Amino acid sequence: MAGIKLFTLNGNVPLAQKISQELGVPLAPASVKHFADGEIAIDLDDSVRGADVYVIQPISDPVNENLMELLIMIDALRRASAHAINVVVPYYGYARADRKARSREPITAKLVANLLTMDGIDRFVAVDLHADQLQGFFDLPVDHLRAMTLFAKYFKSLNLGAENVVVVAPDHSGTKHARALAELLNTPIAIVDKRTDTGEVGVIGHVRGQHTIIIDDMIDTGKRVIDAAKALREAGALDVYAAATHAVLSRGAATKLSKLDLKQIVLTDTINMPAEKHLPNMKILSVGPMLAEAIKLISTNQSIHPLFEPQND
Amino acid sequence: MAGIKLFTLNGNVPLAQKISQELGVPLAPASVKHFADGEIAIDLDDSVRGADVYVIQPISDPVNENLMELLIMIDALRRASAHAINVVVPYYGYARADRKARSREPITAKLVANLLTMDGIDRFVAVDLHADQLQGFFDLPVDHLRAMTLFAKYFKSLNLGAENVVVVAPDHSGTKHARALAELLNTPIAIVDKRTDTGEVGVIGHVRGQHTIIIDDMIDTGKRVIDAAKALREAGALDVYAAATHAVLSRGAATKLSKLDLKQIVLTDTINMPAEKHLPNMKILSVGPMLAEAIKLISTNQSIHPLFEPQND
Amino acid sequence: MAGIKLFTLNGNVPLAQKISQELGVPLAPASVKHFADGEIAIDLDDSVRGADVYVIQPISDPVNENLMELLIMIDALRRASAHAINVVVPYYGYARADRKARSREPITAKLVANLLTMDGIDRFVAVDLHADQLQGFFDLPVDHLRAMTLFAKYFKSLNLGAENVVVVAPDHSGTKHARALAELLNTPIAIVDKRTDTGEVGVIGHVRGQHTIIIDDMIDTGKRVIDAAKALREAGALDVYAAATHAVLSRGAATKLSKLDLKQIVLTDTINMPAEKHLPNMKILSVGPMLAEAIKLISTNQSIHPLFEPQND
Amino acid sequence: MAGIKLFTLNGNVPLAQKISQELGVPLAPASVKHFADGEIAIDLDDSVRGADVYVIQPISDPVNENLMELLIMIDALRRASAHAINVVVPYYGYARADRKARSREPITAKLVANLLTMDGIDRFVAVDLHADQLQGFFDLPVDHLRAMTLFAKYFKSLNLGAENVVVVAPDHSGTKHARALAELLNTPIAIVDKRTDTGEVGVIGHVRGQHTIIIDDMIDTGKRVIDAAKALREAGALDVYAAATHAVLSRGAATKLSKLDLKQIVLTDTINMPAEKHLPNMKILSVGPMLAEAIKLISTNQSIHPLFEPQND
Amino acid sequence: MAGIKLFTLNGNVPLAQKISQELGVPLAPASVKHFADGEIAIDLDDSVRGADVYVIQPISDPVNENLMELLIMIDALRRASAHAINVVVPYYGYARADRKARSREPITAKLVANLLTMDGIDRFVAVDLHADQLQGFFDLPVDHLRAMTLFAKYFKSLNLGAENVVVVAPDHSGTKHARALAELLNTPIAIVDKRTDTGEVGVIGHVRGQHTIIIDDMIDTGKRVIDAAKALREAGALDVYAAATHAVLSRGAATKLSKLDLKQIVLTDTINMPAEKHLPNMKILSVGPMLAEAIKLISTNQSIHPLFEPQND
Amino acid sequence: MAGIKLFTLNGNVPLAQKISQELGVPLAPASVKHFADGEIAIDLDDSVRGADVYVIQPISDPVNENLMELLIMIDALRRASAHAINVVVPYYGYARADRKARSREPITAKLVANLLTMDGIDRFVAVDLHADQLQGFFDLPVDHLRAMTLFAKYFKSLNLGAENVVVVAPDHSGTKHARALAELLNTPIAIVDKRTDTGEVGVIGHVRGQHTIIIDDMIDTGKRVIDAAKALREAGALDVYAAATHAVLSRGAATKLSKLDLKQIVLTDTINMPAEKHLPNMKILSVGPMLAEAIKLISTNQSIHPLFEPQND
Repeated sequence: MAGIKLFTLNGNVPLAQKISQELGVPLAPASVKHFADGEIAIDLDDSVRGADVYVIQPISDPVNENLMELLIMIDALRRASAHAINVVVPYYGYARADRKARSREPITAKLVANLLTMDGIDRFVAVDLHADQLQGFFDLPVDHLRAMTLFAKYFKSLNLGAENVVVVAPDHSGTKHARALAELLNTPIAIVDKRTDTGEVGVIGHVRGQHTIIIDDMIDTGKRVIDAAKALREAGALDVYAAATHAVLSRGAATKLSKLDLKQIVLTDTINMPAEKHLPNMKILSVGPMLAEAIKLISTNQSIHPLFEPQND
Repeated sequence: MAGIKLFTLNGNVPLAQKISQELGVPLAPASVKHFADGEIAIDLDDSVRGADVYVIQPISDPVNENLMELLIMIDALRRASAHAINVVVPYYGYARADRKARSREPITAKLVANLLTMDGIDRFVAVDLHADQLQGFFDLPVDHLRAMTLFAKYFKSLNLGAENVVVVAPDHSGTKHARALAELLNTPIAIVDKRTDTGEVGVIGHVRGQHTIIIDDMIDTGKRVIDAAKALREAGALDVYAAATHAVLSRGAATKLSKLDLKQIVLTDTINMPAEKHLPNMKILSVGPMLAEAIKLISTNQSIHPLFEPQND
Repeated sequence: MAGIKLFTLNGNVPLAQKISQELGVPLAPASVKHFADGEIAIDLDDSVRGADVYVIQPISDPVNENLMELLIMIDALRRASAHAINVVVPYYGYARADRKARSREPITAKLVANLLTMDGIDRFVAVDLHADQLQGFFDLPVDHLRAMTLFAKYFKSLNLGAENVVVVAPDHSGTKHARALAELLNTPIAIVDKRTDTGEVGVIGHVRGQHTIIIDDMIDTGKRVIDAAKALREAGALDVYAAATHAVLSRGAATKLSKLDLKQIVLTDTINMPAEKHLPNMKILSVGPMLAEAIKLISTNQSIHPLFEPQND
Repeated sequence: MAGIKLFTLNGNVPLAQKISQELGVPLAPASVKHFADGEIAIDLDDSVRGADVYVIQPISDPVNENLMELLIMIDALRRASAHAINVVVPYYGYARADRKARSREPITAKLVANLLTMDGIDRFVAVDLHADQLQGFFDLPVDHLRAMTLFAKYFKSLNLGAENVVVVAPDHSGTKHARALAELLNTPIAIVDKRTDTGEVGVIGHVRGQHTIIIDDMIDTGKRVIDAAKALREAGALDVYAAATHAVLSRGAATKLSKLDLKQIVLTDTINMPAEKHLPNMKILSVGPMLAEAIKLISTNQSIHPLFEPQND
Repeated sequence: MAGIKLFTLNGNVPLAQKISQELGVPLAPASVKHFADGEIAIDLDDSVRGADVYVIQPISDPVNENLMELLIMIDALRRASAHAINVVVPYYGYARADRKARSREPITAKLVANLLTMDGIDRFVAVDLHADQLQGFFDLPVDHLRAMTLFAKYFKSLNLGAENVVVVAPDHSGTKHARALAELLNTPIAIVDKRTDTGEVGVIGHVRGQHTIIIDDMIDTGKRVIDAAKALREAGALDVYAAATHAVLSRGAATKLSKLDLKQIVLTDTINMPAEKHLPNMKILSVGPMLAEAIKLISTNQSIHPLFEPQND
Repeated sequence: MAGIKLFTLNGNVPLAQKISQELGVPLAPASVKHFADGEIAIDLDDSVRGADVYVIQPISDPVNENLMELLIMIDALRRASAHAINVVVPYYGYARADRKARSREPITAKLVANLLTMDGIDRFVAVDLHADQLQGFFDLPVDHLRAMTLFAKYFKSLNLGAENVVVVAPDHSGTKHARALAELLNTPIAIVDKRTDTGEVGVIGHVRGQHTIIIDDMIDTGKRVIDAAKALREAGALDVYAAATHAVLSRGAATKLSKLDLKQIVLTDTINMPAEKHLPNMKILSVGPMLAEAIKLISTNQSIHPLFEPQND
């Protein structure tokens, strides 16, 4: 790992430190200041000439600050003659703005990809993109890692018994995701069915008396998980687990979730969670070892296939 | 409609003629030759200087020939000083190659978008893209039309009784699509659930004794419709309709479908269907009037909102 | 002014309203939401197809939020088939990051220009750029307006007597700016000379017993104005005015200025000043009429020469 | 040759195998499927991260299929983090569409260059381009090899006697080409002169009683060779050889040539010739060793000068 | 012609004036200064906002000064909000550097096309490009005019009698050009054949006792014309005319030509000829009317087909 | 220094030779011809495949010839497969055209940056840019060296006594530059103040009885130095030194300077000075060692920080 330089910005310092420790590569020194007028200034304290650089920064809340930190950092690295600029973005903010759902909407997820591309990155490393098509928003190499195996390993470790478990998609778009986890756990799936016009919520599939695991890519306001959990309870589920890769947990979400009768909420550390959002029934799995392994494989030109393709064991 | 020039290539001449008639704008003369050595030559017989040009061409089988016809046409139009080049692509070939499902795959749907963009188009008009995210594969205006209202109108005209109908997604990724039609028809949905590992097929949701309508964006080999129809029959459905926008019907599909006990197969003419693929139980709805209306609105700078946002009536 | 559409984002709504009134063109409806997770969503409520659009947005505090609003808006306008996207940026945040002052710094002012250019703007309208060279950071038309004539007019109206006035540059880089105002007022100049190594401050030029006017392009932390005012007092100035186009006034600046013995602080409204920063000795000149006039001339293809070249009267 | 990866697509597998053997580098595994609906899917079976890749693919009949295979392959390689993508295109389809011969024609040869460039190739290796100016259709390194020396060597080996031979250009545009071979063989030249208006054909230069060698860059429909051969016979030539680098031989060409009284037809294997087109009087020279040598020199950063500049021995 | 603005730079003011008079559009005022340090400064004296601009400038000696004048002018026009920038380049300097004839040569003709394209031109109007493929060096509209009909008209007016005339290509690459004129005059052709290795010169074709017309695209050093004229004389030609579109006539050429026994040298005014180069036996045909007509057709969106395709009368 | 290739063009051969000697790397052979018709032809005599290339060329008088030499060289290097193209431009011609000072002016300094960038350079090495913002005209690495330390060292060696010296800015825009030298010499500064409207010249600051050093980035026509020297004399300066990095010395400047009573004119060799411009009171400092050191550090991926940041010793 001699030739690489690892940087973190302010998005998720604990995760960056975990990756640094796993890799045995120290975080390179850089100062990132936010001035009183709102501007950001970045200074690299070491030369990066000819270096293979990895910058770790989720585009999480404060989304626009974190994105600008990343864009400014890339500008600095490029002008400072870095050899290759790899950005590691564990959480891709604006990923849900990936299409025009109505007339005259922006496609901000593509805008973000364009901004990064224009700025001169060489590689984009992501975890559980909201839609697989986001890979195609870039024309440069995207290494897309999956946290699914972390969840599968964890739920197996609970020994609930495959025959007593149902994996549940919290809405129509999550069905494929649910199927993937269900196959790793060898269980059936169910779907929470919500009418977009009237808002009525039902459950399609058999959940009565079962352990149910709601799987989603993120928990933002918590509304989808909450609606799903209620519908599952009404449909007779034994208990409800919620699992999601990205702990967005925007304003008030943690409070709402705390009032909900969830067995457990399983999340990862792609987003740095402030202490006040941490609930007693939360379990945080770390993506740090997976990202460290990915950086190691990438920087030595080895296939990241094993990380990319989730497998049963 | 004075200032526009309408061209068709070889992809779907009957549809282009319908659009031309609806608009009252004749198809502009152009010769498109395929030489004995496989090369394509295009000659525009009229000046297009300063013209607002619309080229109608689905990227359907023969996919690569049709795509190259389109790319060469755009090159000719650009060099011939066309003012604006609008391409109307009723069927977007390669749309399913919109992500890396495995390591080291291309994202050919993005490649196609890049080829068109690089070639200098000003606008892309599409019908029922395989994934909404394909809009973001372009950075120029995409007008995305939906055939859903055509299907809704048609099924309502059958007077099956909303309470006797279930709309069915033939697999996990189609759930959202099914929900949209179900709301227009005011019915519940069901999902055909197929394990990706073992291939076992089941139905989630209640279909026994119901009229079922499988809705999909395309029928290609027919395998998904056939598997879904069988599963629905086994689950006790009264009868099965299949509806899909794009009649890809690749080699052998029509034959296989002809052996299946489907009440009706409802398709559109985004792809030109050769006579030998036409089955007695097929119903073809035309997207011609909708595309003509879109061209009229676009060329007069009016919102295409009414065509874009499916509504109940 | 029939064909144009005027939009404002959240940066400076009062200024946008002034421009709208001057032009007699209503602000077009658009919703700009900031979600609880920090993401921004924009919806255009009217069609902009074929329209000549002007978006008014200073890149002022919160700088990154305002910049992202602008970038997302441009994405939406481009995809919605706007004919021309003109952005009116009365204050250019990050303008001081226009060069590498030390090794391995970013040039964020160029990054901002690149982001806007990549996003597809057609024209950039600015007021008193920090450095004239910023025009060259764009390759598209930049209309650069000057507030200098507003200041000249105002100070003349005070009738201080040209022979009793000295215009003062608060540091070495502001000398040219000071010379320009001095010529409009027909007075000599002086320069506040600060050693960059030791920080010692002196005044070069004769200010004893004179009315002094410190002129700068912006007041940010206020430090430069405060140091300059103190030096002028020590050098025997009769009294001190401070004039600056951009009222950045970052955290604490207003308080510090309030403690300073300044005759008057003359600013413009390129940045929207919250009530709590407004001091009794502040005078705000509006750039609204000038920007409205510029938009009128631009949209009718007339030279903006009279606004561009400051003249004596 | 340790660091390079050699791929072939379906265009000319035998030539790729020859190159592979010459180089001692095995063809890397990749699957290229053509689906029933006409779409192409490519899968790389090995990692190419950091590799110096060479893809061998003539753009020969089926021209559009072969071009799309190449474009899709490049997309896959780029996304899979190949270090450098070198495409080896022994035959450049559409090369004759290199200018607008009439109003409103495309310049498809430039379009092809643009498609490849946009897709991200790093180097283009070609053999006997139809016009030397095609090199300028690219802005990246083009290594242009010449088969002329293969022809010179071969014809010398026939020992016809330089004084008994005339090299013949089959039309006006081929004169320069003929002069080049004539100088390698130390013979005079003649030109077949065809009026473009009336189609009358004559011979300029002395051919009576001489061995004549028609030299061209390709034989497509065969018409040019046939017309030239007839004119030479009428002008009293002793016998007629035809030589051309690219054996396009489109539909019916082989049959027509078989009826012609040609002493020998000398071709190369830039295009893979199906058995049914092979005539008894054909002689195929292989460009394999030359291409293998070029790849070796390129990948070791050595000048390909010796291959580029044809010399007498 | 109301909306257009016509500019000339220093390359060929007399031709620009002719075009201006033919069009009835005055030359727009602009100052082009060459400073003592060698830098060029351009000032547009009138607004060009929204204008359809035509700039007339051959890239003739001093080639680099003229090219830079053009590039700087385009930069000024773009920044000044011109609507469309059409450059009219009667002579394309560096056109002969259109391929790599040897290893490691630049392709300067492509470089020039890239510089103009990057700078933001919308259209390129040219006369008799050295190679037709140069059109493909641009991806924007190129209007390529031919002076051939001017020559045909002129030689017909001499009434030499078609049966007494032979059109002669001065070397191998000019054969096609000669054939084109020969067909307009209804005469045979001959070719001056020069070995590239030994330099020996001969004539292929029958010229004894005939009026011969050497046709070329340009006369530069005059060497080709002189060698050809000598070879024709030796081969028994009755007399020799030389015709060429571009009168490059570099240092010493006029003197050398003056010593040659040429019946007449027929040239055009694409390049401005200084008085001292004018010989008594020169005849200058003006391309002014043709260029004026082209500008008129282009600016009114009419086909320039009649100017593009040379016809007999 | 094994892997690098050093080239010079015609701009400043003596400086290139100095750099070559310092580095111990011979100048690579290349022929640069200027033809009689004004065109430039470049031939690289050695392979540059895979090489890290440095091209030394100031854009000095003849500015346009030198710029075109550089652009053509870059085109040749790119097409010849150079690995990295570093251009070393000791003097950046057109640098003063870095903004629109009036309506409808070009920004030629940006045009030059665009031309170089488009042509494919990888790095730009400059000395004392006219404005620091020129770094931002590029988006690739710019290594900006300062000659200031050379001047500081030299003036210290004169032992004038810090207390007897004043550094003088010859106009308002040079104040910052003067401050920088003053701090290295530990002296105060003064400013020559010239009204842009009336042209009246005065001095701000105390110079009576002092050694004065006018510092500027270049001496072009000499007018600024001459006016400043006169004003200093009138203000009672003991004597006047002039120092400037770039010896532009356009037509007549040397003569004018020779008539001026300057103690010494201290310049560098960024521009090659012809013997006839050399005056007895000129002292030329060489930037050769600094540029050689920069190339060494760059090519070995070391920070050039020590050269970039001027320090006292």
